[in-house]
Amino acid sequence: MSTDRRTLFAGSATIATALALPALAQQAAAPAAPTATNAQAPGFYRFKVGGLTVTTVHDGFARRPVQGFVRNAELSEVQAVLASNFMPADTLTIPFTMTFVTTPAGLVAFDAGNAPPSGTATNGQAAANMRAAGIDPARVVAVIVSHFHGDHISGLGSADGQRLFPNAEIIVPATEWAWWTEEGNVTRSPEGQRGTFANTKNRFAPYQGRIRQIADGAEAVPGIRAVAAYGHTPGHTMYRIADGGEQMMYVADITNRPELMAPRPDWQIVFDFDGDTAAAVRRRVLDQVATDRMRVTGYHFPFPANGYFVKDGNGYRFVPGDWSSAI
Amino acid sequence: MSTDRRTLFAGSATIATALALPALAQQAAAPAAPTATNAQAPGFYRFKVGGLTVTTVHDGFARRPVQGFVRNAELSEVQAVLASNFMPADTLTIPFTMTFVTTPAGLVAFDAGNAPPSGTATNGQAAANMRAAGIDPARVVAVIVSHFHGDHISGLGSADGQRLFPNAEIIVPATEWAWWTEEGNVTRSPEGQRGTFANTKNRFAPYQGRIRQIADGAEAVPGIRAVAAYGHTPGHTMYRIADGGEQMMYVADITNRPELMAPRPDWQIVFDFDGDTAAAVRRRVLDQVATDRMRVTGYHFPFPANGYFVKDGNGYRFVPGDWSSAI
Repeated sequence: MSTDRRTLFAGSATIATALALPALAQQAAAPAAPTATNAQAPGFYRFKVGGLTVTTVHDGFARRPVQGFVRNAELSEVQAVLASNFMPADTLTIPFTMTFVTTPAGLVAFDAGNAPPSGTATNGQAAANMRAAGIDPARVVAVIVSHFHGDHISGLGSADGQRLFPNAEIIVPATEWAWWTEEGNVTRSPEGQRGTFANTKNRFAPYQGRIRQIADGAEAVPGIRAVAAYGHTPGHTMYRIADGGEQMMYVADITNRPELMAPRPDWQIVFDFDGDTAAAVRRRVLDQVATDRMRVTGYHFPFPANGYFVKDGNGYRFVPGDWSSAI
Repeated sequence: MSTDRRTLFAGSATIATALALPALAQQAAAPAAPTATNAQAPGFYRFKVGGLTVTTVHDGFARRPVQGFVRNAELSEVQAVLASNFMPADTLTIPFTMTFVTTPAGLVAFDAGNAPPSGTATNGQAAANMRAAGIDPARVVAVIVSHFHGDHISGLGSADGQRLFPNAEIIVPATEWAWWTEEGNVTRSPEGQRGTFANTKNRFAPYQGRIRQIADGAEAVPGIRAVAAYGHTPGHTMYRIADGGEQMMYVADITNRPELMAPRPDWQIVFDFDGDTAAAVRRRVLDQVATDRMRVTGYHFPFPANGYFVKDGNGYRFVPGDWSSAI
């Protein structure tokens, strides 16, 4: 943040302080204080599944070269799919978005975001967006983890070893836990993923005695059930959320950006632990949620990170959920 | 707004007042004060066209029966297209979103939104969302109007005849002005649109001496040019915005919801003044922006109301612009 931008923020905060109460009294629809004219609105979005409120909370994004991202396709093919979605040819933007659900047992989070930001990081924005959404991490009763890649678990703990969700139980897929906590598996893991072993140790450390492993098909909390989707990592797991005859699925990393991977489910990306299995499972899951017309949230979906998949040719197409100012 | 909700807002505003400055000093990414846990984030979104900043500002939505909306298609056909977009079969939600652009001449608005809200209206939210976006209506140097339907001009003036954009020039298509200011045209207009004559008189009244009519192809302000797209109304006009080799088009009501109308450009809706012309122009414009891969904003597009069109079969498909927390 430049000095100029900080000055602007400070100025608008002062205006907010002066105006907030009278403005809110007059204007039913006023949801927040004014922001600087160069800022985006806070990254959170709410919708209902039965009686449950789902809130997606943006954690920012990372950028990487398109080249080398898909392991089993020509660059030109990848760029053609990107172009058909009006995405840049050379740089892939990968967004991160957490899913929160109010349940009768309390507020639960799916995955934990990246580590809190340092310097000019474009990710690690979840804490700020949670605050904007009125979500106090101390209210989170469970963080339900899909898999142990750093962008999903680094937000569990601070650099100095504090719990960022101080009162939460951490619920993890037993298969995922077994892999990344066994030193003997280091040499059996792709070289690019070996850092996951140390990060797993560090990020879960503050939660000793608060970690619960669950099996495929088990209930994480009432109404939320684990659905194995192994391949992207050894224990990568989705979660089905059901209430009052409605349901949705948090599909985590079943795709990276769906604009790119849904049309070509067989493509394997650099982050896939077992590319063949990941691709086969991806196709099966996309087919299932398309057939069932089931609403999904995904960790790397375009914000607000919820929508549907439809069959399209030999692949699938992501259809964003309709945005509404009414929840 | 219920009393409970007002109480919640008042509480969070107080917290905001206490926390805003220290929170902003610590957290570069914190864009706004906390909101109630049952509120949506403010409805505004920013992106760049060359050096210009475009801000879309949501004005809420209206709901109406699907039945009777499309005049030249069977209900079942309409419902099939809605279903393929995961939209309800019986009720159509029509969102309203204004487009603002910073220009060297100052801040301009495209269209003015619905009238300020009364009671439980789900529209007329633009004032609150402008405030959230840091947009002061007094800073708007020009409101550039696409056409005179009430949802586009009623937000110009208050019920008691005050200018809601106190310092703005109002720029209107000359052809549109000519139609709706000539009493002799009342009986030549569809019965459902006859209220537009009185509303035009009332809403423009506070701007006497500040109204500028422009012809097709003329510059509204430097860099912004009128593009006739008559049919939806007699003078319905789009605006091309260009800067530094980049461009976009505010296409206004060239479609109502693009999910419904882009796949079937020949469908005519109840709000079309001249259905045959509207449909022919719709197809021509969609073809042009698809061919040119031009970014567009539209008044009834799903928020944040910007994106692209691609050719798809005998029609077109709307591709939302990528959402980014970075502008």
